[in-house]
Amino acid sequence: MASQRVWTAALAVIGDEILSGRTQDKNVAQLATWLNVQGIRLAEVRIVPDLEERIVEAVNALRERYDYLFTTGGIGPTHDDITVDAIAAAFGVPVVIHPEARAILENYYRGRPGGLNEARLRMARVPEGAELIANPSSGAPGVKIGNVYILAGVPHIAASMMEALTGTLEGGRPVVSVTVGARAAESEVADLLRETEEAHPGVAIGSYPFFKDGTYGANFVVRSDDGELARETGSDLIERLREAGYEPVEGGI
Amino acid sequence: MASQRVWTAALAVIGDEILSGRTQDKNVAQLATWLNVQGIRLAEVRIVPDLEERIVEAVNALRERYDYLFTTGGIGPTHDDITVDAIAAAFGVPVVIHPEARAILENYYRGRPGGLNEARLRMARVPEGAELIANPSSGAPGVKIGNVYILAGVPHIAASMMEALTGTLEGGRPVVSVTVGARAAESEVADLLRETEEAHPGVAIGSYPFFKDGTYGANFVVRSDDGELARETGSDLIERLREAGYEPVEGGI
Repeated sequence: MASQRVWTAALAVIGDEILSGRTQDKNVAQLATWLNVQGIRLAEVRIVPDLEERIVEAVNALRERYDYLFTTGGIGPTHDDITVDAIAAAFGVPVVIHPEARAILENYYRGRPGGLNEARLRMARVPEGAELIANPSSGAPGVKIGNVYILAGVPHIAASMMEALTGTLEGGRPVVSVTVGARAAESEVADLLRETEEAHPGVAIGSYPFFKDGTYGANFVVRSDDGELARETGSDLIERLREAGYEPVEGGI
Repeated sequence: MASQRVWTAALAVIGDEILSGRTQDKNVAQLATWLNVQGIRLAEVRIVPDLEERIVEAVNALRERYDYLFTTGGIGPTHDDITVDAIAAAFGVPVVIHPEARAILENYYRGRPGGLNEARLRMARVPEGAELIANPSSGAPGVKIGNVYILAGVPHIAASMMEALTGTLEGGRPVVSVTVGARAAESEVADLLRETEEAHPGVAIGSYPFFKDGTYGANFVVRSDDGELARETGSDLIERLREAGYEPVEGGI
């Protein structure tokens, strides 16, 4: 198999509510899953507080290092929503009102109590030169500038923005994973796993122990961007586990 | 009020399973909550893959910048568990078998199938000069070296290691949070929130919208390490919301 370009992305989660423990983040897992299907690997996540200098630092470090950078959080109407300002500062450009975003918000708030007030108009602010990301689930759009994709923090809104982006990002082959479970203590099969991984260059095997229905076991996840290789390795792993006296379960336990 | 030293911590989550979306992280939220009680502020999180150079880089960046660094994940018995090796590399020290950790594991695996095999003995490996962190819920201990605390990735084991560390870390005053809820669109009360925050230096007010029982609303969280100030600000916020015609709910909705 010819070696392929691996496309990578990072995520900057912006929000005191995650760092304080108040809110359980859900965007890491959903972005990762979505990126897998786009053929892009989530390679790093940073969670930073609602402080401009900290956001700027993370954004500049990550957008230079990876093909794509996503951010979640901090694009609402209140004073603690400073993501757009911070990303404009990171790019060294001013913040401007995006006319199309303004039109979307005018339309969205027409007839709603309060109308398009000053706070809501904040959500039409973008770094100069940015484009919009459609938000099918509520008014305020996401924002794209350079390789940076600014998404909402509320998980279902972030998900609808990802949905709108589906198929628009250049990526490689989707990562394929094959899961094999066994009622085996992972410490008993550690050598077997390492040997299986070494026998199939281009795959990574992870081991995830569990305690279920009163017995211990583990799921072994074979990952590769070569689907055939992942499946072959999965079959080989099943065979090796059987030979070692276990009863492996395809698909995991 | 005299200004106080703020104690800070970072968390490095080590694990391909989080970055692939396979596993939903739970350690960020539980470490954050536990640190609040220790008077330590979680100031940054990085999630990195199971690659030594990436772990070394994150560990060295974070341990220098914050008072404490915690890591979760990668301390099990299998080939993808490389946290100890990476942290030893970050400190520039060799990996050694810790005699007390070995004794704990010998005792734990005595009489269990397989005994203390080579894979399990991996869990007694520590960076030279490290101390152990008690693990009341399963055999293998956590590890402390310098200001770095190496915890398990499995959330209930990580929690029991935190429990064992409770009260042993120097910190400041616990962060106190006061929550006020209202059936208000946050975009209608954005000015009110900003003004309330500005009127009480030393507090941060976060705004977290929700959609519940068919209506929109938001919870406003006032945070400070000065408990009295947080409560005063909470009362002031309630009053301001009432004056603006809302029915604020102490404790949140």
